[in-house]
Amino acid sequence: MSRTIDETHDASRQSWVESANRPGCDFPLQNLPFGIFRRQGTNESPHGGVAIGDRIVDVAACRDVGLLSGAAEAAAEACADPTLNRFMGLGTDAWSALRRAVWRLLLDGDERIRAHADWGTRLAPEMNTAELFRPATIGDFTDFFSSLHHATNAGRLFRPDQPVLPNYKHVPIAYHGRASSVVVSGTSIRRPGGQTLAADAGQPAFGPTRALDYEAELGFFVGPGNALGTTRRIGDADDGLFGMCLLNDWSARDIQKWEAQPLGPFLAKSFATSISPWIVTFEALVPYRIPPSARPDGDPAPLAYLDHGPATGRAGVDVRIDAFLSTPEMRANGIAPARLSRGRSAELYWTPGQLLTHHASNGCDMRPGDLLGSGTVSGPKRENEGCLLELTRGGREPVTLPSGETRRFLTDGDEVILEGHCEADGFARIGFGECRGRILPAQGNN
Amino acid sequence: MSRTIDETHDASRQSWVESANRPGCDFPLQNLPFGIFRRQGTNESPHGGVAIGDRIVDVAACRDVGLLSGAAEAAAEACADPTLNRFMGLGTDAWSALRRAVWRLLLDGDERIRAHADWGTRLAPEMNTAELFRPATIGDFTDFFSSLHHATNAGRLFRPDQPVLPNYKHVPIAYHGRASSVVVSGTSIRRPGGQTLAADAGQPAFGPTRALDYEAELGFFVGPGNALGTTRRIGDADDGLFGMCLLNDWSARDIQKWEAQPLGPFLAKSFATSISPWIVTFEALVPYRIPPSARPDGDPAPLAYLDHGPATGRAGVDVRIDAFLSTPEMRANGIAPARLSRGRSAELYWTPGQLLTHHASNGCDMRPGDLLGSGTVSGPKRENEGCLLELTRGGREPVTLPSGETRRFLTDGDEVILEGHCEADGFARIGFGECRGRILPAQGNN
Repeated sequence: MSRTIDETHDASRQSWVESANRPGCDFPLQNLPFGIFRRQGTNESPHGGVAIGDRIVDVAACRDVGLLSGAAEAAAEACADPTLNRFMGLGTDAWSALRRAVWRLLLDGDERIRAHADWGTRLAPEMNTAELFRPATIGDFTDFFSSLHHATNAGRLFRPDQPVLPNYKHVPIAYHGRASSVVVSGTSIRRPGGQTLAADAGQPAFGPTRALDYEAELGFFVGPGNALGTTRRIGDADDGLFGMCLLNDWSARDIQKWEAQPLGPFLAKSFATSISPWIVTFEALVPYRIPPSARPDGDPAPLAYLDHGPATGRAGVDVRIDAFLSTPEMRANGIAPARLSRGRSAELYWTPGQLLTHHASNGCDMRPGDLLGSGTVSGPKRENEGCLLELTRGGREPVTLPSGETRRFLTDGDEVILEGHCEADGFARIGFGECRGRILPAQGNN
Repeated sequence: MSRTIDETHDASRQSWVESANRPGCDFPLQNLPFGIFRRQGTNESPHGGVAIGDRIVDVAACRDVGLLSGAAEAAAEACADPTLNRFMGLGTDAWSALRRAVWRLLLDGDERIRAHADWGTRLAPEMNTAELFRPATIGDFTDFFSSLHHATNAGRLFRPDQPVLPNYKHVPIAYHGRASSVVVSGTSIRRPGGQTLAADAGQPAFGPTRALDYEAELGFFVGPGNALGTTRRIGDADDGLFGMCLLNDWSARDIQKWEAQPLGPFLAKSFATSISPWIVTFEALVPYRIPPSARPDGDPAPLAYLDHGPATGRAGVDVRIDAFLSTPEMRANGIAPARLSRGRSAELYWTPGQLLTHHASNGCDMRPGDLLGSGTVSGPKRENEGCLLELTRGGREPVTLPSGETRRFLTDGDEVILEGHCEADGFARIGFGECRGRILPAQGNN
């Protein structure tokens, strides 16, 4: 288990990539998230890179010129694939070897990358000259419901008499999502059509959704897999998780309301899910691990297979997630995106390790690159509510934007931007970059 | 649109593969389903084949020796992949060209295959010398709920006051399933563990399911895909479907009961789904196309995007599905598997084309090799109920087997065998082979 505080978390260390040292930079030396990129205007195959400041370290190129050796070189070979799946399957020792080797290459004073004449275009190109891709082939995508605040707020709208069902505090509730439509940040989102039943209508009709929403979530990428018919131990759960990203589980609330019983969300969710391109490793997250939110008195303890035991104190993770909205009118008038909500994963009822362990508890095979969503990250206050369904009380109380516009749900041209970061006393601030998507009008035939 | 009655459906034609001409053979000359196989004891890569009687035509080998040309040769090249995904993506003309070329090669009197000295081991080996694989990499698996009889019977157990919800007759209800755990017939099924709440318990417990069930379904493989943000037209739906298989959606009813609200089935289903290895093409199914089951008076017409229009008369398909059970005691005493249920897809409320069109109606991208399940195929009579949940009234009325044993749900060592076939006046009987799975005891630590 390599996941302890070490020199790579030392906030006093700086990089020779100066942009990485600026306050507020998402990708300082202490982060080093992985992603898949290609230099714009080239025909090269997408391949793995590490974000540092405003640059990307091309790990395959570093390997090719002999800057990586031993376990780091072997890991870099997998990282040269067009997706990170094989690298994710290698496990903590390989991930750590490569992250540490890249850390040393980027440490202030290290000249090995810059010794190459084309380093700035080949070994560490600027991020704004690169195209970013979905980091993994997602075999299966599962979305959980791990915020009790969200479950309560959303549940109240659908079931006023019983917002939270009796199973919630025992079972990490989830639904299987759609893997094909998981897209990388920046991909535009087509407003979906679907069946809805208007409040005053006796019969449903088909047309563009009138209740398009975002959901601010975290995504967890599975590392080494487990074979079908085998389970995972909660004590090993962290070693089974590669890293985290931001995730926007776009939702059509009117379609959801009409279709979701008795088998759960389907087309209301499957038209698109956006993720941020950079995966922050659980190794980088070590300083921000915390206990899960305290269970209120009277809540049941987790069953044994979900009990972190002595590790509970560091079983949670504290990521702050902000959701912003930019409308066409705001952009035309030079108004900055407005914050809709801010949440913290510290307030989730279930931990990432509990989600993974529960998922495999029936013998379901989890594969490297499988994606788990946290569910909407909401908190106890209104400003912590991570979707418009909650913020507007089901569309009844519109939010007002700095432009004077109001929104019950999203309008064509609206852009939602998720941002996330971690901070902790004595440690650096590390960020997740952004997860961005703009709404396109419905197809003509809707 | 190549899907009309033609010479390949002519029941009077016979094959030189004599086993294909025997009454009751699932794979006569009129069928020619596709699958993925490898000769046992070889290191060869799994690749595509066509079932004929008790043999498999190796399409790649036929191509290698020059027996295929033109469009059939091009299709055979894709069919040589270790999965059928690329072949499925080629579309009806390519599928038809290859099926027709293989039909001609197999027609009584044709000597081209047998002109090769090693034909019986290379070009058309015996099926019992081959290992069969999952025919496609399943990007996403979606399971529908298209039998109103099943929805009514199962709904009555969970919601006695309202078995069928108001949306059912408007929306083809479905849930996203788990793709990773779809396994080919013959794979043993490990009894899953999970959380359940016993009737007399105040708190849930984790342990092996006590209510393991089968569900007799059909699976539909998607052909050419549609891009994210685009929809599909009902009039083109049939061209988007490659073929059908048998599907057993294994279910743990006690886990399902406790976990399934509010987001639908999850771990109760994701531990395993079995499919038969041979995919019967929609071209082979042309003679067995029928109208969907008549909607009772007062039921709504499908909305326009789901209305087959003039094609409604052939929008359904009539497959008869039998489920058999074999217990360890029955096997020890030489007792043949006992039939549990028999269903007909003629009685489904929704057609395969409606399922596909609805699935893409929100712009969800469907990919070649995606799998859609029909949901349990039940009919109006008790003998038509396609799962133990229905047959035993939720476990209250056990079924009695020829051995004198009874079953409420499945016991370790039990084997469920699904069989399916089509028949129609003036046409041959074609079959689906079998979908078989035997229950292994729960893992030791459950």
